[in-house]
Parts: sequence; structure tokens; C-alpha cells
Amino acid sequence: MRKLTVALGDRSYPILIGEGVLDRTDAILAALKTPRVAIVTNDVVAPLYLGRLEAALRSVDVACDSVILPDGEAHKNWQTLNTIFDGLLAGHFDRSTTLIALGGGVVGDMAGFAAATYQRGIPFIQIPTTLLSQVDSSVGGKTAINHPLGKNMIGAFHQPRLVLADTSTLTTLPDRELKAGLAEVIKYGLIRDPAFFDWIETNIERLLAREPQALGEAIERSCANKARIVSEDETERGVRALLNLGHTFGHAIEAGMGFGVWLHGEAVAAGMVMAACLSNRLGWLSARQYERTVALIGRTGLPVRGPKLGAARYLELMAHDKKVDAGRLRLVLLRDIGDAEIFADLPAVEIAAAIDACCEPS
Amino acid sequence: MRKLTVALGDRSYPILIGEGVLDRTDAILAALKTPRVAIVTNDVVAPLYLGRLEAALRSVDVACDSVILPDGEAHKNWQTLNTIFDGLLAGHFDRSTTLIALGGGVVGDMAGFAAATYQRGIPFIQIPTTLLSQVDSSVGGKTAINHPLGKNMIGAFHQPRLVLADTSTLTTLPDRELKAGLAEVIKYGLIRDPAFFDWIETNIERLLAREPQALGEAIERSCANKARIVSEDETERGVRALLNLGHTFGHAIEAGMGFGVWLHGEAVAAGMVMAACLSNRLGWLSARQYERTVALIGRTGLPVRGPKLGAARYLELMAHDKKVDAGRLRLVLLRDIGDAEIFADLPAVEIAAAIDACCEPS
Repeated sequence: MRKLTVALGDRSYPILIGEGVLDRTDAILAALKTPRVAIVTNDVVAPLYLGRLEAALRSVDVACDSVILPDGEAHKNWQTLNTIFDGLLAGHFDRSTTLIALGGGVVGDMAGFAAATYQRGIPFIQIPTTLLSQVDSSVGGKTAINHPLGKNMIGAFHQPRLVLADTSTLTTLPDRELKAGLAEVIKYGLIRDPAFFDWIETNIERLLAREPQALGEAIERSCANKARIVSEDETERGVRALLNLGHTFGHAIEAGMGFGVWLHGEAVAAGMVMAACLSNRLGWLSARQYERTVALIGRTGLPVRGPKLGAARYLELMAHDKKVDAGRLRLVLLRDIGDAEIFADLPAVEIAAAIDACCEPS
Repeated sequence: MRKLTVALGDRSYPILIGEGVLDRTDAILAALKTPRVAIVTNDVVAPLYLGRLEAALRSVDVACDSVILPDGEAHKNWQTLNTIFDGLLAGHFDRSTTLIALGGGVVGDMAGFAAATYQRGIPFIQIPTTLLSQVDSSVGGKTAINHPLGKNMIGAFHQPRLVLADTSTLTTLPDRELKAGLAEVIKYGLIRDPAFFDWIETNIERLLAREPQALGEAIERSCANKARIVSEDETERGVRALLNLGHTFGHAIEAGMGFGVWLHGEAVAAGMVMAACLSNRLGWLSARQYERTVALIGRTGLPVRGPKLGAARYLELMAHDKKVDAGRLRLVLLRDIGDAEIFADLPAVEIAAAIDACCEPS
């Protein structure tokens, strides 16, 4: 088992990574205020892992309720969130009870936002069961739901008390979702860890083959990068924004296609190619490093081109992005692999040209 | 003009109280990150004060949008909240823009919760226009919406950057709402300020006659009490819970009658009588002080009895209250006027008896 800590003073919390950590009741008990939890999961994950988690908790006298959401980004909205509130209120959950998110990024974001706002905040635990949520969304306390006009537009910062990343849950993950998770893994290499990027280049086949040792290493190095960034900048006033590499383009893809059509990781992959392309066009990222970036994303089986929405539509959707500051679009670009920076006031014509160059031919 | 400060480190903020402070653009400008605001108000307040505030802001080059909500507690729900999000997103509001709540407690709670969760948090300013919101809800950062199963069940702690309490707005306040606000004024005397309670007893006729000097004094002393409590305990882990005197009973009245039938302050008034009655029955509050409490609430024209829902129904509704901790109902009771304390595990039969004694005859 690997263990990391997100250092945030009296709100610091551990991340445990490894085979079978899902029902580490010692860690869960240490995180609870009272022996009562509500497990939020979805209808795909519930048949796989809910019974095991409930049995483990009940064996140590923790009372469990569960709320099962429909699966998918398309349900990351207020209506679905409200089913969590309904369950908590019907069960008379109070401020001392704990919410456990068991599932992927959508479950984690919604359960986290429910925990952030139920009675103005209750404790929660993340048990991510997808690669994407294990390497990214379960760590750092960002929670949200979507609005028809934009992804993750309604949300809160609310840190979990514990993250349990059980690598054995990845054996049941569909191939497409494994690859989507690898997009965020590659991201850490691109923004701040060139040695990790090299390691991924060397080990991408092992990762795609789901070798447990390789997956454990990738998750640990990803979470270590994420934990350090979150410790430095919890509420994204500075360095944390680098984690949005590819995300502004990616959000435009997700919103433009309708949430749930492209997986988040797929959209981020194409978005990172667009960001790298723009970085190259502006003379910051060398052609060689741009090619390495595109090649690794391609070898992972992720899209290296975005859907042909038209550059104007991309720019319109990007204007709704949360990274917009005082009306100025801010983008994370690359000076090199492992060296990202935030830029504002980039020429729209260059952004549009990069988008056009990285979209599917019509 | 009177000025107070809520001391919360780098999130400290001023409260300005006085005639005409509504359009103190110097204070507003100092609180903005960028010169762009969205004013959230309702259809009763908008015709009275929105134009004046917009004109003042535009005269100092602040761009204003506005979102006008339907008036009333019955609209304090997700659907109404979403109209704020719609307006912010349609106007391309970003994280640097500021939300201004112009209105009573419902507007402040909803605009505050929108500010807490829009893009995971944007700055906001409170301009309360009712006595209740000036003395209580605009200060301290509690924001929320209601759920059919409970009042203020979904919310967040999100401190404003400025509170402007313009006493001249109270001239347009309906009598019933003025009295509802006085319930919270009396509360401060009861929980921690016996000298203030004496002052209210002496000056209640001046307050009911809306003498500006008396209202200014009552608001300042109320806010000073509130500010000190919030500074000591921002997220209600301890002393802040004393502010809930009468509120657990009161929430049961509001929920039991349907939100909006009883005003919040009216329900709190009857709830404070119940709490005082229970305190007396348990031997903590003397008969003399109990009588003073009931007499002052009665002289204010506030209800000294609750609706006849039946004690069992009260207890059921109270079990949903946020003050419930680990399944134990906690109530704020009085040892004396000016000396409140939190009690758990009180005998249900005594609570029921106090409720029955303080309800309208059938």
C-alpha cells in the first residue's frame, strides 16, 4: 500500500493507494465523527462494490444508508443531487454523519457537493473507482454539478477526510474509461513533471495492459503532484490553475457535444493537443516536444483531434469557462514538457487557428 | 453613521449602519475586485431601491446587471436560485465579479448561496432592507435555501465583503415585518446581553414608532453582539449555536404551517416563549424572568403562542433540525435573561409539555 498526505493544516488528509484498500475500515473509522454513513454510488458501481463496502462497515458497527444515482455525466445536475438530499433528510442525517462517495468523478463531484452544502457542510470520504477519479478528481476538494450553460459551474471547495484509491477496482473499468484516466496522468507530466512524462512514454503499454505495479506507480506519482499543488493553492488563486491544461478547450468540447458524449478525459486529451499546438504556434513549445505530446496521447488511444464544431463555437463556449478572469480568457500553455504557464490576452486569431488545425476534417 | 467590524482575519469586513448608507459607493468600490456587479433583489424591493443603487454604481463606472426574484420565503428554493445562476451565466459573469444582495433575509440567503457556489465562490455584498436581515441574517455568512423536508437545509458558510444597513429603508417596511425583526433584536438581549434587554423594555414603543435614533441603536447593539459571536465561532461549532434560541421550535412552526405562512421572526418569537417556558419548567429560568420575556414579546405585537400542530408533530419536525447532533436534539435554553446555554438529552415529555403549554387553545 502507498500512502500520501494532502497537507492542509488541520484539514490535512491521507490518500491510500493499493489493491484492496476499498474496505480499509481502520482508515475509515479514523475519519468518522460518529459511526453513521451514507454511501453515494451509481447503478454501475453498486453491483460491483457496494455490498463489499457495506459489509465491511457493518462488521465494525457503522450504520450505512446508500443512495444510488444513475450513471453518467448527463446526470450531474441538480435533480440528481437532490436525490442525495432527499435520502439524507429522509434518514435524518445530521451534521456529525459522514458521506462516502463510491464511484468515479461524477459520483465524487456530486457527493462532494452534497457534503459541502447539506446543512452547510458535513464530512465526506472519497473512494474513487475509476482511474480518472483516482488520479485527479478525488483529491483536492473540488466539487460541482453542471449547468446547461457550463460544466462544473455550480460547486464548492470541500476537502474530503480520506481518499481510498483501490487499484483492484480498475480491473472492471471499461477500456475507454481507463484511457480517459490516462489523459489526466499524462497531464501531470506535461505541466510539471518531465521525468514522469518520460516514465509514461516508457510504460504506456504496461499501463494499457493494466499491470498493477505500473498503475500503482502512475496513480501515486499523479496524486503526489496533485497533493503538492493543492497544498500550495487550495482554492485556485495561482498555481492550481495549471491543472486546467487542456480543460478550457476540453470543456468546450464536452458542452458543445452535449455532456456525456465525449468522456471528460477524452475531451481533455484533445484539449491538451490544442493547447500544445497553440503553444507551438506561438513559438513556446518546440516542434519536437509538440510531436512527443501528440504521439503519447495517440499511443494511449485517446483522441488527438477535437470534433468539428467550428472555431467560433469553441471560442463562444470557452468564454463561459470558469478560468475566464475579469472578461479575459486565460489558458494554460506549455513552454516545454513539464513547464506550463498561464497566459491571458492571447490573440483570438491564433487560438482559432490552433483549434482549426486540431479538429477533425469535415 | 455607525461602523462595526466582523473580525475574521483576512476575511474581516465592515458593517455600516445609518440613514442613506445604501448607496455608499466609496465603501462598495473598496469591496469590489472588478467594476462589475450583479444585483439580486426581489419584486417588492426593486421598485423602491434598485434604481437608486444602480444609478449610484453607474455614476462611479460600475457595470450593473440585476436579477429580480419573486418575493417571499415560499420561493427560497432551488428553482429560484437557478434564476440567479441563469442570469450570471447569460451575462458571462466570472470569478472576479461581485454579487450584491439587495433585500431581506430571503434575498440575502439566496444571493449569498449563489455567491458561495457560482464557479465555487465569488465575492458578495449584503444590503439588507428589512430589520430582520439588518440585525441578523446579513451578518455572519450563513447562506441557504430550503428543502421541502426542512428549512435552510442546503447551504454554505460564505462571508460577505461588506454589509450596508440603511435604516431609512425601514420606513417602507410593513408593520408585521418590523415586528418580526424585533424578535431577533430581543433574542440578543435574552442570550447574552441583559443590559440590552433592559434597554429594549424601556424603548420598545420608540422602536415600534420607528424612531430612527432608537432603530439605529437597536441595530448597532444587535450587530455588535452578532459580530462578536461570529468572530469567535464562524462555523457554529460552539457559542454561535446560542443564536438559535427559539429557532428549533420556530423552524417546526414554519415547516409545519408551510414556509411563508408564519414569518421567520414570528415563529422565532413563539419559539423563544417555548424555550423560556421549558427553561422555567426545568427550574432554570425564574418565573419572574419568564414573565418578563413573554411580556416583552407580547408588547412587541409578536405571537406568544405557537399554532396547535400537536406536540408530537412539533417533535417530529424538530428532529429534522440542523441543530440535531448525532441523533440528539440540542436546544438553547435560558438560565436567566442574558444567560443562554445549550442542552442535549432533555426529557421529551418536558419538551412536549412546554410546547402544549405555549400553543394556541384548540
